Amino acid sequence: MKLYQIQSAFGIDNLAIAERPEPQPGPGQVLLKMLAYSLNYRDLLVVKGLYNSKLKLPFTPLSDGVGKVAAIGDGVRRVKVGDRVCPLFMQQWLEGQVTDAKSRSALGGGGDGVLAEYAVFHEDGVIPVPAHLSDPEAATLPCAGLTAWHALVTEGKLTAGDVVLTQGTGGVSLFALQFARLVGARVIATSSSEIKLARALHLGASDGINYKTTPEWGDKARELSGGTGVDHVIEVGGAGTIGQSLRAVRANGRISLIGILSGTGAFNLTSILMRNLCIQGIFVGSREMFEAMNKAIALHRMHPVIDRVFDFSEVPDAFRHMESATHIGKICIETK
Amino acid sequence: MKLYQIQSAFGIDNLAIAERPEPQPGPGQVLLKMLAYSLNYRDLLVVKGLYNSKLKLPFTPLSDGVGKVAAIGDGVRRVKVGDRVCPLFMQQWLEGQVTDAKSRSALGGGGDGVLAEYAVFHEDGVIPVPAHLSDPEAATLPCAGLTAWHALVTEGKLTAGDVVLTQGTGGVSLFALQFARLVGARVIATSSSEIKLARALHLGASDGINYKTTPEWGDKARELSGGTGVDHVIEVGGAGTIGQSLRAVRANGRISLIGILSGTGAFNLTSILMRNLCIQGIFVGSREMFEAMNKAIALHRMHPVIDRVFDFSEVPDAFRHMESATHIGKICIETK
Amino acid sequence: MKLYQIQSAFGIDNLAIAERPEPQPGPGQVLLKMLAYSLNYRDLLVVKGLYNSKLKLPFTPLSDGVGKVAAIGDGVRRVKVGDRVCPLFMQQWLEGQVTDAKSRSALGGGGDGVLAEYAVFHEDGVIPVPAHLSDPEAATLPCAGLTAWHALVTEGKLTAGDVVLTQGTGGVSLFALQFARLVGARVIATSSSEIKLARALHLGASDGINYKTTPEWGDKARELSGGTGVDHVIEVGGAGTIGQSLRAVRANGRISLIGILSGTGAFNLTSILMRNLCIQGIFVGSREMFEAMNKAIALHRMHPVIDRVFDFSEVPDAFRHMESATHIGKICIETK
Amino acid sequence: MKLYQIQSAFGIDNLAIAERPEPQPGPGQVLLKMLAYSLNYRDLLVVKGLYNSKLKLPFTPLSDGVGKVAAIGDGVRRVKVGDRVCPLFMQQWLEGQVTDAKSRSALGGGGDGVLAEYAVFHEDGVIPVPAHLSDPEAATLPCAGLTAWHALVTEGKLTAGDVVLTQGTGGVSLFALQFARLVGARVIATSSSEIKLARALHLGASDGINYKTTPEWGDKARELSGGTGVDHVIEVGGAGTIGQSLRAVRANGRISLIGILSGTGAFNLTSILMRNLCIQGIFVGSREMFEAMNKAIALHRMHPVIDRVFDFSEVPDAFRHMESATHIGKICIETK
Repeated sequence: MKLYQIQSAFGIDNLAIAERPEPQPGPGQVLLKMLAYSLNYRDLLVVKGLYNSKLKLPFTPLSDGVGKVAAIGDGVRRVKVGDRVCPLFMQQWLEGQVTDAKSRSALGGGGDGVLAEYAVFHEDGVIPVPAHLSDPEAATLPCAGLTAWHALVTEGKLTAGDVVLTQGTGGVSLFALQFARLVGARVIATSSSEIKLARALHLGASDGINYKTTPEWGDKARELSGGTGVDHVIEVGGAGTIGQSLRAVRANGRISLIGILSGTGAFNLTSILMRNLCIQGIFVGSREMFEAMNKAIALHRMHPVIDRVFDFSEVPDAFRHMESATHIGKICIETK
Repeated sequence: MKLYQIQSAFGIDNLAIAERPEPQPGPGQVLLKMLAYSLNYRDLLVVKGLYNSKLKLPFTPLSDGVGKVAAIGDGVRRVKVGDRVCPLFMQQWLEGQVTDAKSRSALGGGGDGVLAEYAVFHEDGVIPVPAHLSDPEAATLPCAGLTAWHALVTEGKLTAGDVVLTQGTGGVSLFALQFARLVGARVIATSSSEIKLARALHLGASDGINYKTTPEWGDKARELSGGTGVDHVIEVGGAGTIGQSLRAVRANGRISLIGILSGTGAFNLTSILMRNLCIQGIFVGSREMFEAMNKAIALHRMHPVIDRVFDFSEVPDAFRHMESATHIGKICIETK
Repeated sequence: MKLYQIQSAFGIDNLAIAERPEPQPGPGQVLLKMLAYSLNYRDLLVVKGLYNSKLKLPFTPLSDGVGKVAAIGDGVRRVKVGDRVCPLFMQQWLEGQVTDAKSRSALGGGGDGVLAEYAVFHEDGVIPVPAHLSDPEAATLPCAGLTAWHALVTEGKLTAGDVVLTQGTGGVSLFALQFARLVGARVIATSSSEIKLARALHLGASDGINYKTTPEWGDKARELSGGTGVDHVIEVGGAGTIGQSLRAVRANGRISLIGILSGTGAFNLTSILMRNLCIQGIFVGSREMFEAMNKAIALHRMHPVIDRVFDFSEVPDAFRHMESATHIGKICIETK
Repeated sequence: MKLYQIQSAFGIDNLAIAERPEPQPGPGQVLLKMLAYSLNYRDLLVVKGLYNSKLKLPFTPLSDGVGKVAAIGDGVRRVKVGDRVCPLFMQQWLEGQVTDAKSRSALGGGGDGVLAEYAVFHEDGVIPVPAHLSDPEAATLPCAGLTAWHALVTEGKLTAGDVVLTQGTGGVSLFALQFARLVGARVIATSSSEIKLARALHLGASDGINYKTTPEWGDKARELSGGTGVDHVIEVGGAGTIGQSLRAVRANGRISLIGILSGTGAFNLTSILMRNLCIQGIFVGSREMFEAMNKAIALHRMHPVIDRVFDFSEVPDAFRHMESATHIGKICIETK
């Protein structure tokens, strides 16, 4: 079977197809014939060698994908041959709270990822996906989808009438927009592009703020919220944006820290203290959260936003497309 | 000014208009010119003398209404003349947990109610209402609306993908249906009438069960939920229905006890224990919950379901209409 | 090896020792050499044939015990030979919420129990125990200990200054008393015996109420709480006592339903509704809760209350002792 | 009556006694004869002009004190003459969530503080204190006590067996130590002084870490916790210490940000994200939390740690003592 590897050195140009024997499922394991994959910004960092300095090459990247169960090992009871399932981002975070041990079971960051034609997982580490989703759509759920769900619903307990601020039109932000709408919340979206803002409005945001033309977008969001501030910010920028997020959010409000695209520098702790704010780090989620998310996606026949689907042979192009930052929603890869 | 009183004896026929001087607001108080009222089943019990055996006659019934601020007393800061506000069902449950003392501040059950042309309240005991609502619509919020919101959202933390079972087409049940839809949940509704079920489906229920033709409706609801049971039951029937509700609900699920229309007898405690169920009594709610509900209603421009609006002169007819149990949604009264 | 079985018919007299080959651990499994066991009231019902009408004989009873890992199967990673562990009451409730499927994995009620010299469990279904506990003490944790922890701490979020009412001096009630004291709460205990009340006071209860001499003990408990009512009731009696519990508890308070010793008949739903009460069924708990409980027990070097320890050969006597209802705390069995 | 004012310029030397007419309570208000006061680090910043750049002089500092009700205005029902009460730090944060409006009602930071012989408050803005406390002890509750309670108990839901890390021996940190012990948690304390660490151990900390001799105290705390990290950090240092706090805390753990003594610069956001951490700003608390805290303090007859009590005439000395940072616990002032 074919798989991708970052070979002797990091960089998109060093991503190449290799040939390996098809793996076999041991006791309690399942073999997946992979159908589709999706890219996260983390994967771009991995490929460029910026994510984990201890990574040994060659390395197979990517955490997110969907496959069909091709074979099962002894004692497997949760799934059967033919089921369409996603591997969990953290193979061992099934339920309850996360631990460092569960975190270390993440795919594509420390151990090898899923960018192969076939892959083996423990039966506990896969989950069936809603039937109405295409393969590329299903492949977007394990990291981007679940992160947004965990932040807004599981931890954030967002509900009808609440106001959420989302940043940009990356995968997590658009999932956050869609989930916020599912639970009846209002969404204020930011972007540097009028075209992307138009797309956010089309997806259900009530307001868009162009942060290039409105650098004080935190104050603008607060004003749009009616003056008291938004209830919840989905923070993907980190140190470069959190200052404005702190201006946007209401007293006792919540900032879900899910990305640090703009870096990890200083920011003002005083307003966190003085306004009883919560900064909650969100790193993907558990299988139990994934099940709840699937119920919501299935009930509403929600479709994740796909920017573009590349062929398995075009993986380096897919990464270059992500690097260009012109996408709206998820970049996917499909096997034929 | 005119007001209604249950006069020398209980019963709808003893409900009559009396004349009193217009009250004046003291320090911290507001005078409301009432615009509309709505009836709850509790009011029918009050009028018939079945609610509170200690009630002294003459007595002015009704907890729910909406009025325009006609005058304010010294030091009032929260509202101004001209504001359209509802009195709180419990005048002293503003925030936090309920106490017996807060409960005793309920209108129309121990102390006099709102069925008068003018009424005075402490400024803390009124709340502005969403602008898009008609007066009768706004009058339905203080008890029926808030009870459903408290049960599903504040306590129940209902969210997208969850499944709720509602019983009948009374005021609280239809609010529950509407709020459940706002937060993205699925609703299974029961009724003894196909016409009422059709209305529930029209309002967004996914399924209706006729409990006359399906007496084992608990099992049917469980089956419709996919076999595991519904997440939340809005229980309005009490002892007569809770047995089926216990069959409908999933392990670790929640039954909000908001009414006991069918009585208060025996039921099986074993399944509560063995399946880790929660039976949560819900008696209206706080001003803080009301504010959250208003935000959701305003954002979604939601309209409560009104069955019929009577004139102030027709109050006894309104109670008789409630007694007939043919209504779907709220019965209201409007002043001219 | 030896094991006990309820043989051709139910009843304590039909409980006898049989001989079986020592079981062997399969992949992922562990073999325990059992060291001690403890009895719950449920086990007495099982032995008498009153618990589960579908039980097939012969049947090995008991859910609770502790053993030493004597051998491990392929792939076992969580425990090693020599570890002292308890089997989980529900073998499959590891984390998160309970489901009906997880409930069905309970020991000693549907499938065979632990009253054997050796027993095999999946490695996920056992948990190490605090080192300072004797074997009989450790054997009391899986059902009685965990039920009390789940009720008060996990669900009840009991904290310093809260007031708890416990009923009687059975296993769960005394654990509840001890855990309530660990978290700084005040305990009011009831009993029909002055000797048992003295023991409860010795264990840290602030007040004892003799329900024989004070049949209106609910009002007495409310008065002792300062008039507003207790925050939490550990209800072990069911229908026969819940009426007084409803009088004892404060508005918005919580009744954990953990037993129905006095039956399962009618009780008044009105006060649940009107006072926003929560009746929460509690059926044991998850491994995650067990881990948290163990941390607390270890930190405080807490010792469960043991009434009496019987030899493995005296199991029928142990059940007769439970039947006599003269015990205070747990009845245990020890192997030599 | 006498009161202190920061007069024409900021600085401890400009703090002087002035003479004013005794204030009178209006409707709904109470007059307090102040009995004692306590200092917080915030007060030192206020006096030095470092807290709020918009402060107008002359200004009466201090948020915390206790007084006896000397007179009540019309309509006061919650308290009576002779009651011993504390003013709330935020006069309008009674229950529920904080808002910016409630925050603006804080004493001694924007509006005048309590450092006067008599002061008037709305009856809603005072709370009775436990009878066993001396006046100086009672005066420590409104800010330092309530902040620790809010962080650990209300928000943190700390319970038996959890592990807390406290920093130093200031007022909030010692309250946190005491409250953590009340709820059965384990405390690891840090300090730069062996004498202060000995005091922390005496108060119930299980371990002390000297951060001068152990600059990597975060790793040490993690090791002491058993390797997984502490559950909760009470962060009083801000940017200078949070890096070590992030090393000390477990995955999914909580850092309550209650002070920024060491400044407000950069820190690493990555571990917040990757380990699902929560940074929760804590700014004092509500009256509802204060009531819960009082119940716990009264039940356990807990005594706050007082470093030294100054006479009303010695207020500048009290501030200089705080400036010296040699204190352990609270610095108080008492009237005669």
